[in-house]
Amino acid sequence: MKKILILNGPNLNLQGKRDTDVYGTQTFEEYNEQLRHHFEGKACLDYFQTNIEGEIIDRIQQSVGIYDGIALNAGGYTHTSVAIRDAIAAVSTPVVEVHISSILAREEFRHVSMIAPVVKGSIMGFGLDSYRLAIEALLLEN
Amino acid sequence: MKKILILNGPNLNLQGKRDTDVYGTQTFEEYNEQLRHHFEGKACLDYFQTNIEGEIIDRIQQSVGIYDGIALNAGGYTHTSVAIRDAIAAVSTPVVEVHISSILAREEFRHVSMIAPVVKGSIMGFGLDSYRLAIEALLLEN
Amino acid sequence: MKKILILNGPNLNLQGKRDTDVYGTQTFEEYNEQLRHHFEGKACLDYFQTNIEGEIIDRIQQSVGIYDGIALNAGGYTHTSVAIRDAIAAVSTPVVEVHISSILAREEFRHVSMIAPVVKGSIMGFGLDSYRLAIEALLLEN
Amino acid sequence: MKKILILNGPNLNLQGKRDTDVYGTQTFEEYNEQLRHHFEGKACLDYFQTNIEGEIIDRIQQSVGIYDGIALNAGGYTHTSVAIRDAIAAVSTPVVEVHISSILAREEFRHVSMIAPVVKGSIMGFGLDSYRLAIEALLLEN
Amino acid sequence: MKKILILNGPNLNLQGKRDTDVYGTQTFEEYNEQLRHHFEGKACLDYFQTNIEGEIIDRIQQSVGIYDGIALNAGGYTHTSVAIRDAIAAVSTPVVEVHISSILAREEFRHVSMIAPVVKGSIMGFGLDSYRLAIEALLLEN
Amino acid sequence: MKKILILNGPNLNLQGKRDTDVYGTQTFEEYNEQLRHHFEGKACLDYFQTNIEGEIIDRIQQSVGIYDGIALNAGGYTHTSVAIRDAIAAVSTPVVEVHISSILAREEFRHVSMIAPVVKGSIMGFGLDSYRLAIEALLLEN
Amino acid sequence: MKKILILNGPNLNLQGKRDTDVYGTQTFEEYNEQLRHHFEGKACLDYFQTNIEGEIIDRIQQSVGIYDGIALNAGGYTHTSVAIRDAIAAVSTPVVEVHISSILAREEFRHVSMIAPVVKGSIMGFGLDSYRLAIEALLLEN
Amino acid sequence: MKKILILNGPNLNLQGKRDTDVYGTQTFEEYNEQLRHHFEGKACLDYFQTNIEGEIIDRIQQSVGIYDGIALNAGGYTHTSVAIRDAIAAVSTPVVEVHISSILAREEFRHVSMIAPVVKGSIMGFGLDSYRLAIEALLLEN
Amino acid sequence: MKKILILNGPNLNLQGKRDTDVYGTQTFEEYNEQLRHHFEGKACLDYFQTNIEGEIIDRIQQSVGIYDGIALNAGGYTHTSVAIRDAIAAVSTPVVEVHISSILAREEFRHVSMIAPVVKGSIMGFGLDSYRLAIEALLLEN
Amino acid sequence: MKKILILNGPNLNLQGKRDTDVYGTQTFEEYNEQLRHHFEGKACLDYFQTNIEGEIIDRIQQSVGIYDGIALNAGGYTHTSVAIRDAIAAVSTPVVEVHISSILAREEFRHVSMIAPVVKGSIMGFGLDSYRLAIEALLLEN
Amino acid sequence: MKKILILNGPNLNLQGKRDTDVYGTQTFEEYNEQLRHHFEGKACLDYFQTNIEGEIIDRIQQSVGIYDGIALNAGGYTHTSVAIRDAIAAVSTPVVEVHISSILAREEFRHVSMIAPVVKGSIMGFGLDSYRLAIEALLLEN
Amino acid sequence: MKKILILNGPNLNLQGKRDTDVYGTQTFEEYNEQLRHHFEGKACLDYFQTNIEGEIIDRIQQSVGIYDGIALNAGGYTHTSVAIRDAIAAVSTPVVEVHISSILAREEFRHVSMIAPVVKGSIMGFGLDSYRLAIEALLLEN
Repeated sequence: MKKILILNGPNLNLQGKRDTDVYGTQTFEEYNEQLRHHFEGKACLDYFQTNIEGEIIDRIQQSVGIYDGIALNAGGYTHTSVAIRDAIAAVSTPVVEVHISSILAREEFRHVSMIAPVVKGSIMGFGLDSYRLAIEALLLEN
Repeated sequence: MKKILILNGPNLNLQGKRDTDVYGTQTFEEYNEQLRHHFEGKACLDYFQTNIEGEIIDRIQQSVGIYDGIALNAGGYTHTSVAIRDAIAAVSTPVVEVHISSILAREEFRHVSMIAPVVKGSIMGFGLDSYRLAIEALLLEN
Repeated sequence: MKKILILNGPNLNLQGKRDTDVYGTQTFEEYNEQLRHHFEGKACLDYFQTNIEGEIIDRIQQSVGIYDGIALNAGGYTHTSVAIRDAIAAVSTPVVEVHISSILAREEFRHVSMIAPVVKGSIMGFGLDSYRLAIEALLLEN
Repeated sequence: MKKILILNGPNLNLQGKRDTDVYGTQTFEEYNEQLRHHFEGKACLDYFQTNIEGEIIDRIQQSVGIYDGIALNAGGYTHTSVAIRDAIAAVSTPVVEVHISSILAREEFRHVSMIAPVVKGSIMGFGLDSYRLAIEALLLEN
Repeated sequence: MKKILILNGPNLNLQGKRDTDVYGTQTFEEYNEQLRHHFEGKACLDYFQTNIEGEIIDRIQQSVGIYDGIALNAGGYTHTSVAIRDAIAAVSTPVVEVHISSILAREEFRHVSMIAPVVKGSIMGFGLDSYRLAIEALLLEN
Repeated sequence: MKKILILNGPNLNLQGKRDTDVYGTQTFEEYNEQLRHHFEGKACLDYFQTNIEGEIIDRIQQSVGIYDGIALNAGGYTHTSVAIRDAIAAVSTPVVEVHISSILAREEFRHVSMIAPVVKGSIMGFGLDSYRLAIEALLLEN
Repeated sequence: MKKILILNGPNLNLQGKRDTDVYGTQTFEEYNEQLRHHFEGKACLDYFQTNIEGEIIDRIQQSVGIYDGIALNAGGYTHTSVAIRDAIAAVSTPVVEVHISSILAREEFRHVSMIAPVVKGSIMGFGLDSYRLAIEALLLEN
Repeated sequence: MKKILILNGPNLNLQGKRDTDVYGTQTFEEYNEQLRHHFEGKACLDYFQTNIEGEIIDRIQQSVGIYDGIALNAGGYTHTSVAIRDAIAAVSTPVVEVHISSILAREEFRHVSMIAPVVKGSIMGFGLDSYRLAIEALLLEN
Repeated sequence: MKKILILNGPNLNLQGKRDTDVYGTQTFEEYNEQLRHHFEGKACLDYFQTNIEGEIIDRIQQSVGIYDGIALNAGGYTHTSVAIRDAIAAVSTPVVEVHISSILAREEFRHVSMIAPVVKGSIMGFGLDSYRLAIEALLLEN
Repeated sequence: MKKILILNGPNLNLQGKRDTDVYGTQTFEEYNEQLRHHFEGKACLDYFQTNIEGEIIDRIQQSVGIYDGIALNAGGYTHTSVAIRDAIAAVSTPVVEVHISSILAREEFRHVSMIAPVVKGSIMGFGLDSYRLAIEALLLEN
Repeated sequence: MKKILILNGPNLNLQGKRDTDVYGTQTFEEYNEQLRHHFEGKACLDYFQTNIEGEIIDRIQQSVGIYDGIALNAGGYTHTSVAIRDAIAAVSTPVVEVHISSILAREEFRHVSMIAPVVKGSIMGFGLDSYRLAIEALLLEN
Repeated sequence: MKKILILNGPNLNLQGKRDTDVYGTQTFEEYNEQLRHHFEGKACLDYFQTNIEGEIIDRIQQSVGIYDGIALNAGGYTHTSVAIRDAIAAVSTPVVEVHISSILAREEFRHVSMIAPVVKGSIMGFGLDSYRLAIEALLLEN
């Protein structure tokens, strides 16, 4: 059974409480429960959220030898963080980039993903189900 | 059972024959067989490939009422085609954007997706498995 | 009596079926009927629509000696097609550029018209009536 | 009968005296006479020309309740004036943008129209006949 | 008691009549009355509005020795006027830049303020209260 | 009585110690004392400073239901932080953007404010008094 | 004897009163006296200054048949005015562009001259003597 | 004897009929005759022209194992077609890029060649003789 | 004897473990030992690494009066951090910018250094020896 | 009597032989004779032309203490040479920039003058008379 | 028999010694020998190489009346030299631009050719054979 | 003992005579003496300065087999010279880029270094001591 880290960046702790017409009213905790249930027996899911860029980097660095994959939604840091990009490039853990909505369909400053060139793949625009698809992508990995 | 169209744009008929170190040696026909087997009972998969931009538009327009979803890899037209974008925006069929490799990890002129703002979601970078994930995304649709 | 070709590019066959709040519910066929009636005795109107860029070029090339003018709505190809521009510049048939809505009032990638510098004139923003004004412009020609 | 204001910006008082190979030798006064004759019984045409940006704004503001439409050629201010744009957006009078030659076929700094996104429609490139088409466009309005 | 000029540029005479959902239905005259009442005994407020760029410059030049401060809303000229900028830089009267809505939250061509680098300070986004805050800022001046 | 948080970003703890010719020699603690005195009976002022981007986000998120407004000087993060912008957009607490000097009058990389489009309003250029005006702006709120 | 118009744009009436370390303390009236004396018997000099863009255009248009040349310092309008450019291009009067300081040595937004491509020549950077050189240039004209 | 395909894109069928001062009055058919004569015994020349982007791609794909080289003038598609570029990169047939006039000496939008980075070499500016040089280049191939 | 702080930003704790062909297999701890040995009697070296941008700022602020210089490798924050730049500019401690590889020889987004304009000097491209040269540069300081 | 160096850069030795419709048929030697005659008793004129960028720099450096001024036409190096700019900035000799035609009225790559910010003033567009005006400007110098 | 100058710019004297995997190990002297042999009786070939931009200009200027054509590889000066461009435009000698590799297939700063708009034609990408094709192109000249 | 060439580009012969507040009053000859003394027994230092771009290239080419390293300050050519870059890339001699002041802290046109991507490393901002550090860097080379 693969061990996977769902790593959420800034403001994703507010899921279900902000822009509910865009993101829905389900909190990430509730959704996480669903995910765990869905992948029971196939994947063991850990979850970590932080608003601090450096702590995302810490977690990516510490993942080596512990996790078989990371589903990473770097939130607002996606568009600017060279440091998170460097962390992903430095570790061997496969990372899948996740976005709830499509970053290419929003404001122009969100069109750039600093991390896309160094991740295994990117999934965006499917709402919370983007995470489910990301985990499936990580499980495909043989 | 949902009816899904896999719609491939220019040069994707060469899959398995070009850049085999990047794209693998499996042809799309072989992969398609695998896909059909994998989604047996869940989805009925049709396949169409063309090098002509306008024929991609024709197919998108004709999908209404026939297909429950399109997995679209518009190939090189992804980056320039306003006309394909307009076609997707004009129909009610859900379209998922697929790319074998990550367009954001290649040359700068491939970083733009004209269609990303009008599709349901985008999946890229997972090799041929990007198609499998796209179909799963379309099946999630309820 | 002048012979005029109304030449419509990609997705204009969907007129009346998409974005009906923007473009209205009248199909181009119905509108064409009205146009023919309006210009009865003044102009003979032919109509051709295609989603394929190269076929627009074919028609422009073939217009010489047959048509006294073309009312051209190149749709999404307006913004990118050097080839259509070259075709217009190569023939002697007067071409009037038509747009249902104003391309300058929409997304930034639509602000450029590759063909505007080589047409006789441009008319945009008047809904389907843009075509009527275009034909009147072509009839002014003496 | 509709009451329409032809509002001309800077240097258009020189029509017929400058660049006669491009604009012709007919003065705007002469052309205006023709226009009035052409639209006799259909439209009542007023004419105002000024070189001062703020006076164009004054006239647009004062048009409310007096004119049924404005045919506006803002001349050189077309490309830079946020203030004229704001005036058009602030009034209910329909405004049609007119240009004698196509702004998209001249120097690059003329390719931008600040007012295009807020007018009813734009007509350009038909010489002085652009005004006649603009008035016809305003009369279409029901 | 300080003497302060409220100097309004193009289209601000339409306050209360245009975009009432954005700017409210209160005219500037009514608001001015309120302002005068509020600052009674603290500031003597003069008011001038013009649509002509050069008249804004005239007033700024004439303010020296007469006014202790100017609350300037240059409207659409804010984004393009080198000449107003030069006038502000040339006089000793403190000028505070005012905007009813935030220019940084609107269309991209409004993001530039030519005058911000030469004013004492800028206040924007507080509706008509931006003027009240601007006057308070000018009164702080010792 | 309203409860207001003054939230200062990176390097603002050095106020009074750096660039004293630009920012003055008064420390923020001294100025804060003055502010508290000035708004006695009208507003209860809390103060928090941090150099860590994520902690600014934490505080903005935690403000809901506790503070009636935030006077936020995000310092250097103003120009780059999508994450702080998202935090402000996600909470209902009114936020006023404050800058001691005008960001538009300094180096070009400071001309962009990522947060201006999502705050209630912006005040800049009035030295430490920018904070006083910001609090007055928050108190206007009814 | 040639008749020459010195035409000064916005803020040049403040010469001698602003930025005296850059522009000197001599007013334009005093300098004009010197100029008239210097060119006595060679040129007859008229002088006009205005802060209004449209009035500069008026004067350029009216110069035909009256003046043998214009020494034009369009001030801040130099960098943005398409309308003044069009006026110069429309008249036969030779126009020499004058600047007291070098526009290419100041802020970047001053590096563009909209009028340089349509004037006879440009002279800048020589302080008030730029005018004297401009008049000498106009007298060279045979 | 080598087998070579001359592959011409949009509007090149008009050679000899358009812009005759630039391109001459010789049609491509006549020139082709000359070419065949010139390379008799050295090369066997096939010719194909199409206005449709996708058909150029089809021909490039089908060239493998049939042609020893392609002299490709992609016309207006040269500047925008990612899809043709991908086709060239995907096949082993050597492709030489040909242009009658120099694309770098014309309008700026023609300065980009999407295909130059993937062809064997580029020859432009020698009129119809560019084709002769291209064939010679392909014959050099050993 | 001078007291010098080696301050390392994000991902530099992975030195010796990532991209070993570029950066070598020596860890920073091992290299640090060498450095201490090399500068014995000349400099006392402290070392701090963090992935958190704000903690770099904290350390720079706290250096005043404690360290005679900082050798700073801000890693990925080099290219985006206005806040670190402001911290360096605010303190009197001399800072030397260090990079293991040349930022100007890597991806374009790394070509910008936000801190270069405010440091004493920059050294890059010499592998780990860049640190040794930086310390020598700080010791030169008299 | 002032000693002045006329320093001409690349291709100016061809004056009178190239583009005679633009530059006239007078060679610089002939014109120089005229200039010497015109300034007899007022200025002693030396002349040097070179096609080599570094030799222009040599001459500028050597001018100190020998010449009272340089009339410099750096030709094509005007637009790119940081090194000539640095040379001018490094010496005390006043330098006047001269161009036969207006660089702002030609191709866009000629619109930039690297040396304008460091010269005393610029004169352009007056044909060969630009040199005469430049010398007069240098003689004004007191 | 035509007299042709092969004119090589900076670093081309290193041919055969640098980047041998890209450019081959044949020196230009050896290749020149081959060329002379190949064109024996058809063309007389002179050769000149220099690292100095101004000397390339000298040679182009001196070619008039001596050479029937120049095959010019301006090396690194291709991308920046306005002065070489001006020299080519000033002489009547036909110049063909040559590059060993395709400048459009290398780093972005090499994509611009300053000389392409003024040469007879351009040939690039064929290795040393680009010179042979260039000479053939010059011999075609009748 | 290593043999090192200090290679100085344009205007560096003026060191000690220009901008003495920035660069100090020490001439390079005096400094060179100091350097030679400092590195006595460790390095043999040669010195060459030229204002001519091509001579810098000559020296770099000739260094092979003679020098163990070059400390190169290309002065103003740093920012534009593709040709010097190509020379450095073509030789095996290690080159260290030196700048007296930081190019990243000056005007924007100096922020680009064409040579940084091909040198061993870059040192800038330490005044003349940048050379001493560069030589130390070259001596580290084993």
